[in-house]
Amino acid sequence: MRRFPAATLEAFIARALAAVSLPEADAREVSLLMTRADLRGADGHGVFRLPQYVRRIRAGGINLHPDIRVARETTATALVDGDNAMGHLVMRFAARVAMDKAERQGVGWVGVRRSNHAGPAALYASMPLERDMIGLYLAVGNANHLRPWGGVELLLSTNPIAVAIPALDEPPVILDMATTVAAYGKVKTAAQRGETMPEGWMIDAEGRPLTDPQRAEEGFLLPIGGYKGYGLALVFGLLAGTLNGAAMGRDVVDFNKDDVTGTNTGQTIVAVRIDAFEEPKEFKRRVDALARDLRASKRMRGVDRIRIPGDGSHATFLERSRRGIPVNDTRFPSGGRKTCGASWG
Amino acid sequence: MRRFPAATLEAFIARALAAVSLPEADAREVSLLMTRADLRGADGHGVFRLPQYVRRIRAGGINLHPDIRVARETTATALVDGDNAMGHLVMRFAARVAMDKAERQGVGWVGVRRSNHAGPAALYASMPLERDMIGLYLAVGNANHLRPWGGVELLLSTNPIAVAIPALDEPPVILDMATTVAAYGKVKTAAQRGETMPEGWMIDAEGRPLTDPQRAEEGFLLPIGGYKGYGLALVFGLLAGTLNGAAMGRDVVDFNKDDVTGTNTGQTIVAVRIDAFEEPKEFKRRVDALARDLRASKRMRGVDRIRIPGDGSHATFLERSRRGIPVNDTRFPSGGRKTCGASWG
Repeated sequence: MRRFPAATLEAFIARALAAVSLPEADAREVSLLMTRADLRGADGHGVFRLPQYVRRIRAGGINLHPDIRVARETTATALVDGDNAMGHLVMRFAARVAMDKAERQGVGWVGVRRSNHAGPAALYASMPLERDMIGLYLAVGNANHLRPWGGVELLLSTNPIAVAIPALDEPPVILDMATTVAAYGKVKTAAQRGETMPEGWMIDAEGRPLTDPQRAEEGFLLPIGGYKGYGLALVFGLLAGTLNGAAMGRDVVDFNKDDVTGTNTGQTIVAVRIDAFEEPKEFKRRVDALARDLRASKRMRGVDRIRIPGDGSHATFLERSRRGIPVNDTRFPSGGRKTCGASWG
Repeated sequence: MRRFPAATLEAFIARALAAVSLPEADAREVSLLMTRADLRGADGHGVFRLPQYVRRIRAGGINLHPDIRVARETTATALVDGDNAMGHLVMRFAARVAMDKAERQGVGWVGVRRSNHAGPAALYASMPLERDMIGLYLAVGNANHLRPWGGVELLLSTNPIAVAIPALDEPPVILDMATTVAAYGKVKTAAQRGETMPEGWMIDAEGRPLTDPQRAEEGFLLPIGGYKGYGLALVFGLLAGTLNGAAMGRDVVDFNKDDVTGTNTGQTIVAVRIDAFEEPKEFKRRVDALARDLRASKRMRGVDRIRIPGDGSHATFLERSRRGIPVNDTRFPSGGRKTCGASWG
């Protein structure tokens, strides 16, 4: 495993994307966001995805000269049509619209359709932080790994939610989570390593615990809290997909298996101006106080520290900013690097 | 167990509240909402709470002549000061403000502080449905039953979320859930019945599964998805409590043990106009289609039907509207009925 400075990785990604004809300014914007994902430890959403993005671009599954535009709007809401662009570009555009609307109206709620995979949810939920706003992001995932509760057909994705809330001296509170107990990537990792999975990650078609990751195709990921997580995945999907006229349920295209069909990905971002409710500095002081109180509270035996959502990725960000981003071959799906047609360094 | 027509129960609740000097119009509004909770099967949030409300009113813990008002606003947001009124009145007011703002701006985001327990989350999330809007509700619970992940101090409540999304011919999709695997009420019920709890509901201070509900005081409720549910409870609390200047964390007053101290309850309601994104009828058709597709999908052996969130409460609503609301002594906390000073019928 080698480490690369963020700037090096970012330049590499930009060159790779430009090499498959993504316009240079867009390639730079996407590579910035992908590198930011890697810096914060979202290893399944940064350079890891490059081979897949390149494959889809080459297959004609991405519009390289899109007209990303507001298709419908009110003073505080907008529906953005992503015109099948790279998801990062669509979501960057949508986040700006949401923040501009929040600036004027207090809150901005922006949905997108005809978008694509855009990396980690936290990336977009965090954007409003720099303007003293809270960010909230919902998305329909790009492959169905979840069944309706009691069913056996994979009709839902592990639709994630992210919420980002600023603090003063503490790191911001950033929650970014799928609605399943374990992400599918963790199952694949366990399979690679020959490990068994703990009970609670998956069940088989008979409802029995499935702990052999080699048999993952026979089973289903379990949603958090059982039927509750199923309910969350469903309503997040209705808000981010159905409401925006984007894919949901059976219409979701499995972008791991299909590089050509437009995914019509749906995402939603909400920005809320803090000073609509409280002076930002006072609010951030309260967030600091709460975070410190939780951290300093009595721990269960054997627990070394109490974490606040976002602590881990913040620590990773500091460490990787200093020491570089670790990259190794095994972080790529099989055949991944070969499809890149570019070399590291 | 006897059943009472909703109108009878509603009139009884209104009389009981008026008997402890809640102004008649307010008593009628609260009783309407409490009865609606019972009609939809939220048995822990309807008439069940009457003795506790009456006790708090008598103790001076509720302001009977409040000035519920918008304390701060932008075009699309508001912060409502509940002036320590009955929570139902504060939230009814806040929901109207949110809908009025959504009517004009597309979305309305309204937070409240100095509110009180207001019954089930779904009650308020559902209000926007009648105006072709989607409703979203977050609240800080009125007692801390949750510890930070890895900790042993009860510093968080099981802060709930509710989302209500309309359909055309199908019942609306209404998710209403706490962020713990089991609600504390289910633990108390298991204790009453002498049953053991399944693993996964609670753990003891050493982190071992706790299945004896008689020992509940020694343990902790488990959040859904482990640290994920803890994260949800925390961010929902920051949004509904901290942002609104309401109680959160250690400041939360346990309203089961304290009838006097103002709870400074925080709640947030968001209303989103559907036609800001899609023609409402077309959207509702899509919700119908998705719900039917999930329901008709292949089931796991032994499962009689696949449910959509809200199905259960919708069926209960139809049944109780026809046959009446079941009420029995055991639905009251000990000594509950005596404190009412009123008779049924």
